[in-house]
Parts: sequence; C-alpha cells; structure tokens
Amino acid sequence: MEPIAIPLGGPREERADAARNRAHLIEVARAMVDELGADKVTMDGLAERAGLGKGTVFRRFGTRAGIFLALLDVEETAFQERVLNGPPPLGPGAPAVDRLVAFGHARMEFLVERTVLARAALDPAQPIPVSASPSLFHVQMLLREACPDVPAIPALALQLTAALEGPLLLYLRASDGTAPVAMPRDLAAGWKTLVERVCG
Amino acid sequence: MEPIAIPLGGPREERADAARNRAHLIEVARAMVDELGADKVTMDGLAERAGLGKGTVFRRFGTRAGIFLALLDVEETAFQERVLNGPPPLGPGAPAVDRLVAFGHARMEFLVERTVLARAALDPAQPIPVSASPSLFHVQMLLREACPDVPAIPALALQLTAALEGPLLLYLRASDGTAPVAMPRDLAAGWKTLVERVCG
Repeated sequence: MEPIAIPLGGPREERADAARNRAHLIEVARAMVDELGADKVTMDGLAERAGLGKGTVFRRFGTRAGIFLALLDVEETAFQERVLNGPPPLGPGAPAVDRLVAFGHARMEFLVERTVLARAALDPAQPIPVSASPSLFHVQMLLREACPDVPAIPALALQLTAALEGPLLLYLRASDGTAPVAMPRDLAAGWKTLVERVCG
Repeated sequence: MEPIAIPLGGPREERADAARNRAHLIEVARAMVDELGADKVTMDGLAERAGLGKGTVFRRFGTRAGIFLALLDVEETAFQERVLNGPPPLGPGAPAVDRLVAFGHARMEFLVERTVLARAALDPAQPIPVSASPSLFHVQMLLREACPDVPAIPALALQLTAALEGPLLLYLRASDGTAPVAMPRDLAAGWKTLVERVCG
C-alpha cells in the first residue's frame, strides 16, 4: 500500500506542538510533585518551570486540580494495562468473581498509594466523579462473566462501582481523618463480601 | 414536678425569632415552588415575598440550593417517621432483609417523586453528598440485624449506601437525561439483588 500524502501545515503542526507541550508539562509537573510535594505545585510555578506561558498551562489543564488529574491519568493507563494484560487474578486467566475481587482491591491500593496525587486531583468544587470512573467498564464486563443470570446488570454494575469508589474517594478527600469513612482495610473486606455474595 | 422557672430575655427571644423566621421562610418557599416551580425561586424573590431582609434569607440557607435542601429536610423528617414508626416492611415488624430492600425502594421513590426539589437541592458546586446521607444510619442498623455474621459491617453499610444513593443522585442531577445512569426501575432491581444476596 502506498502511504497517502498528507500536506503538512499549520493545523497539523499545531497539534504536534500541543502534544509536545502536554508531554513536557506532565513531565515537569511529575518532577515538581516528587521534589516539592503536590501542595507546592501551582499553575504559575508549573508554567515558569516548563518555560511556557500561563495561558498554555491553563488551556491544557483548566484548573490546578486538572494538573494532578492528568498525572493520575498517566498512571491510570498503566493500571488498566495490568487489568487487561497483566497476570491473574487481576489480569485475564482467573475466574471472573476472583478477578472482580482482585480488581476492587487493586483499585483501592492504586488510589491509596497515590493518596496525595488523588487528593490533589479531587477538585473540592467538583462532585465525587463516580459515574466517570474507568472502573465502571471493568466491573460491568466482569459482572456479566461472573454472574450472567443476575438481573439489571448495568444498574448493578453502576451500584457496585459507586460502592467501590464512593467511600474510597471520600476517604481520600478526608485530609484530616475526621470524616465518617471506614479504613481501606475494612473497605477491602466489604468489597470482597459484596462481590462474592452477589455472584456466589 | 414543678416546672423550672427560666428567665426570659434577649438571647432566648432571638432564638424564638430565628425559629419563627425559619418556619415562615420554609412555608413561603414551599408555596413559591408549588406556584412558580423551583426554577423561579431565588434568594431575592423569597426575601421579598416573605417580607424579610435578604441577609436573613442568606443566614438561614447560605445558598439558593440551601432553600431546597431545607424544604427536602422537612419531607425527610416525614420519611424517617415512616421508617421508624410506619407499617412494615418499611417500618418495624418485618424481617430485616425485607426492611432493607423496602428501605432502598422507598428511598428511591422518595427522591424520584421529588426530582425537581432534589435536583434543585443538589448544589452543582458541591460534591454528591453520599457520606452525609441519613440513609447510612438505617442501612447499618438493618444490616446488623439482617446479617450480623458479615465482616466489616460499618464499611459494608457505607458501600451499600453509596450503591443506593450515588447512582440515584447522579440520575436526579442529569437534567437532560444523557448521563450514563440506569433508570430507577433497574436501580431498584439492582438494590434488591445486592441486599438479598449479601444477606441471603
């Protein structure tokens, strides 16, 4: 097959520039979080250190929380790779119920290990993003495999995703530890009970 | 017993005034919602019609969403009365699993029947209030009764409450119906599955 000749020009170069800027900004932000801590990373500081205009940073991330969301998104991709192609029971090759339990536990571990980043990514002015969770897709897929006889699987998948992520995000957001939220260990036990009994 | 004489004075009268103002404001807000629809109720409009200063309305409700939250709170009290003292299976006298299923279904019905009010009470700048839900108390109590053998009941109660309220609040907030949220009927079926299988 002959490659199709695409005229190079303004718009395409602009897109390549944008992608480069984004990758550069994420790299600089990652270094700043590691060196200074997430608390000290600001839009202005990031723009200065990256040698880019503040407008560019604003266009890429929207808000300060958007910086951390983008950093989390990079790690999210690595997490999904483990789910899709990693070793069982998180990856393929184990019974679906075990995968569902492992998925919830890995998800909790993923977020708890990244508490500072996850907390910074939770814009206090934004709702807890339950419905936008990438977990919903996996939970629904594994639920269909684990217990195809269960009625209303899409609704149940949404409810299980809310059960998995809602309390955990509340825990992560509770910076002073006073929120009425159970510890991750108890949430892990609760998740195991939910999944094994629903599909048992 | 002789009643204890309490000296009447400034602070006490002020509190009585505040309570009267609050009751009056709630009554006027209720009438305005019925007549004009929640969309048309504003802090200014409420102050004017109630014959009170805007500062008083602001102190009582904080935000516009606070008006609707206060209205919902009045109905919430009536709902809790049905749970605590009403006929079974929502009220006492039925097996705890049946009460838990009935509680979730009544809760969904309660919020869906009050969609306009509930939607108006969801301040778009505030997180979905899962942990502050009055449902948590009932879910935990009934869970203890229905399946005391289950490990990590407080965590599980929080997860079930998130499963009950999270998707429903997302459904209520999705004003244009495009959100990826299951219909209340499916959520009701999902809730029944969750509870009966967890405690079955």
